[in-house]
Amino acid sequence: MADDTGSSRSKPGPRPRPQVPPVQMPWAPPILQDRPIDPLSPENVVRLDAAVRRILSDVGIDVQSTEVAQILRQAGCRVTGTLVRMDGDFLTEMLARAPRRFDIIPRNPDRTITVGDGHLLFGSVSSPPNAWDMERGKRPGDRAAMRDLLRLSQHFNCIHFIGGYPVEPAEVPPSLRHVECLAEMLRLSDKACNVYALNATQAEESMEMVRIAAGLSADEFRQAPRMFSNINSVSPLKHDGAVLEAALRFARAGQAVFVTPFAAAGISAPTTPAGAVALSLAEALSAIALLQYASPGCPVALGSFTPTADMKSGAMLFATPESLRATQIAGQMARHYGLPLRASNACSAPVPDGQAMWESAAMLWTAVRSGASIIYHAAGWIEGGMSASCEKFLMDCEVLQQIQRYCAPGLNDCGDEGLSLDLIARIGHGGHYFGHAQTDAQSRDAFLRGFLSDTRSYENWAQDGAVWTSERAHRMVPRMLADCVDPPLPEGAQDQLDRFLDGRRRAAGVAEPA
Amino acid sequence: MADDTGSSRSKPGPRPRPQVPPVQMPWAPPILQDRPIDPLSPENVVRLDAAVRRILSDVGIDVQSTEVAQILRQAGCRVTGTLVRMDGDFLTEMLARAPRRFDIIPRNPDRTITVGDGHLLFGSVSSPPNAWDMERGKRPGDRAAMRDLLRLSQHFNCIHFIGGYPVEPAEVPPSLRHVECLAEMLRLSDKACNVYALNATQAEESMEMVRIAAGLSADEFRQAPRMFSNINSVSPLKHDGAVLEAALRFARAGQAVFVTPFAAAGISAPTTPAGAVALSLAEALSAIALLQYASPGCPVALGSFTPTADMKSGAMLFATPESLRATQIAGQMARHYGLPLRASNACSAPVPDGQAMWESAAMLWTAVRSGASIIYHAAGWIEGGMSASCEKFLMDCEVLQQIQRYCAPGLNDCGDEGLSLDLIARIGHGGHYFGHAQTDAQSRDAFLRGFLSDTRSYENWAQDGAVWTSERAHRMVPRMLADCVDPPLPEGAQDQLDRFLDGRRRAAGVAEPA
Repeated sequence: MADDTGSSRSKPGPRPRPQVPPVQMPWAPPILQDRPIDPLSPENVVRLDAAVRRILSDVGIDVQSTEVAQILRQAGCRVTGTLVRMDGDFLTEMLARAPRRFDIIPRNPDRTITVGDGHLLFGSVSSPPNAWDMERGKRPGDRAAMRDLLRLSQHFNCIHFIGGYPVEPAEVPPSLRHVECLAEMLRLSDKACNVYALNATQAEESMEMVRIAAGLSADEFRQAPRMFSNINSVSPLKHDGAVLEAALRFARAGQAVFVTPFAAAGISAPTTPAGAVALSLAEALSAIALLQYASPGCPVALGSFTPTADMKSGAMLFATPESLRATQIAGQMARHYGLPLRASNACSAPVPDGQAMWESAAMLWTAVRSGASIIYHAAGWIEGGMSASCEKFLMDCEVLQQIQRYCAPGLNDCGDEGLSLDLIARIGHGGHYFGHAQTDAQSRDAFLRGFLSDTRSYENWAQDGAVWTSERAHRMVPRMLADCVDPPLPEGAQDQLDRFLDGRRRAAGVAEPA
Repeated sequence: MADDTGSSRSKPGPRPRPQVPPVQMPWAPPILQDRPIDPLSPENVVRLDAAVRRILSDVGIDVQSTEVAQILRQAGCRVTGTLVRMDGDFLTEMLARAPRRFDIIPRNPDRTITVGDGHLLFGSVSSPPNAWDMERGKRPGDRAAMRDLLRLSQHFNCIHFIGGYPVEPAEVPPSLRHVECLAEMLRLSDKACNVYALNATQAEESMEMVRIAAGLSADEFRQAPRMFSNINSVSPLKHDGAVLEAALRFARAGQAVFVTPFAAAGISAPTTPAGAVALSLAEALSAIALLQYASPGCPVALGSFTPTADMKSGAMLFATPESLRATQIAGQMARHYGLPLRASNACSAPVPDGQAMWESAAMLWTAVRSGASIIYHAAGWIEGGMSASCEKFLMDCEVLQQIQRYCAPGLNDCGDEGLSLDLIARIGHGGHYFGHAQTDAQSRDAFLRGFLSDTRSYENWAQDGAVWTSERAHRMVPRMLADCVDPPLPEGAQDQLDRFLDGRRRAAGVAEPA
């Protein structure tokens, strides 16, 4: 399927057109209308905050970087080697510097996203090592699969940012992966994107590429957040020092950093949601304090990623009730600290079936109602993040569109039109609203129409081949890909990117693009 | 599959035992820990309430019963034929009589359920005309399918009440269906059950059967709610007069009545959520006012059932974003009126696939967070209610158990154990929580273990046959049914029920049970 599309893409001549063009909603990142769920009492918020401060002050965090340790010593933290103990007052002062809300302006300014304050942003799946589809099953990720998923990410208006490479292309040498993948992301999408950086050099390289793709000068680039990077701590209570050093480069250049501890309850964190979140907050807030010290007011977000352990096997389970609560607790604490929340749509199911969708629906609706602003892996993730799937991507997008529609303020309208009292009086007792002129007028925008759901009668569905949802999605993928249009880069940007890449390839001793 | 089980049931000898007994949670109807979602501002609550009162006062409602019209005329309503106009003051006075909360005590008092005040009650699917399974597809409902689903409903602790016959047995004559099906419900389950009554005679017959099955005297029966009946109005603004007369009999006998308008937005109600809910509330509250006038303080609940129209075909769509909002608005208004809310887990998908589960997960989590107390069709509904499926029943139960676990107050614990500060200090930087003694001690109850989810690695799952969720459920059904134990009836009750049924069969001119 993806192969077909990949080859048709390089062929001349007209592409096959879909018979029924799939309907999708316009670009309009939703804004949550509801008060988020607060699982904790005000007293428990105070207790959890006190626990975080005690962890940072008494137990401390290992930053694994002499550069970072020196900065934090200078800031007044108690430092032994790379172990940093941070006082509550310092933390408070640094958190006060962080913005509650900020914009990220990608190379297409029409795709600017606002982070924080109830703005909901859905990102494409990122980082699985494998691709999966209905025909070929699971296989190592490659460039072709990466491109398919990047094109879908660009195509769907309900996807607001590129979370990273949607599958890791195994054929690309690891030393070049961050630049090769970023080049693909920047070529195939004009939306804001996550860049990877395992060290300061990679951070500088990534920023340079984003700058080139946007056609900006170095000064212009630094005038606003143009991109973001997500960093994970190494739970429990450790950071990857080189990654922190990369984050410092982003922060100093005014670019956004999301700090997401990978605190798996029962594995790298306590089993209890509050305990896992306490540990996770200590890790995230210590990094955020560092960044705010180094670059006051730099855009940051607090990430929550708390799977739970299968206590028999030690495997990680996603979308469990305990992890849903952990996300909510993290969201409440993020509001307490005045930070935007990053969450995820993760599931455990190996294939995009019923389990995958009860897991993903629970994760997505929970992320929304936890007050999350940035939702990674919103579309396409299966198998605990080991694989990305185009079928699942489409299935998730159907749910994302429902969430977008759910957030339309008009749905709560209790004005004259919302209450429809005149119409109710006119139709009276036992009449019909269907086909009525006012209903017709309202109806054009009254209800969301999905692109993937089958809501016909069973008999119609059966006559049409009795196609289950994942198979419907599978058949739709090539049609969708045929519809995808790669966004033009600014004049000369592709050449500059190519030259930049060639330089990195030569430096790495790789002659040709993989 | 169901056939196998049906025949093995009548065979002597040991039943086949499942190799791995499915784990299920104990009977413990959950209590919502969260503040429900309030989609409306306080001003909009006032506006919506005013709209409901204007509809009842100005447009009125057709009760289609001279008995009911007479009662409401006596109560001071303005009545023309069977068209009743009800003033706001009367409505307020009657609603004040309704209890916020009440218990229903079925024949097994250990299965007593509390309605209202955040208590969550999940009911089995009810009333589809067809059964569906993975092997046989869709077919007309029959006794065998009804029994399978009733046994599963009794077996699963996360099912708290029997919503009615889970499929309509086509072979049972319509004139006897209410008693024949109720006899099956009472024999195969000791949980609280919904009884059907299309008129006053059927209401009296149903109550008599529930009384017999519980081994109660007529006086004892009336001392508490022992059962409940759900009635639907005929939107827009009409009631079925005979059904209202049945409801009066239940109310006068102290039995519970849930009033659920079938207000399909764009079909029998306005397209706007607030308009559809306004219409729906006018219908429901008029019936509740009638019942409170006739039997002050009788147990009632407000039902919300608001699918939306496919504006092309006129078909009803379930689990749409607009219907989710309507449920929330109805929940907020139910709290405003001090009434328990009844909601549903409805989906449109023709089979238990990904679509079915993103629809059902959205409906279930929305019902919970709308503050619904009574959730009909919580397990087993597919295809817009045209079919019931054992596979879907199991899939829904997995989600219901997750909700039960989600509601455990311990998940929000921020005490010493919840925060786990000592453990965090002890494990320190870079250690492991998995396998740690305290983690082990906590872990026994730390995480819910599902019975249907597959959370193993893809490779293990593939080696084990690569079985998708619906197929896993399908294979599990016979094992589950083999585990089911029919609850004993009180001494002599079966004989009395049989005699009662024989009398009704003779009266209907039917010699043998179908």
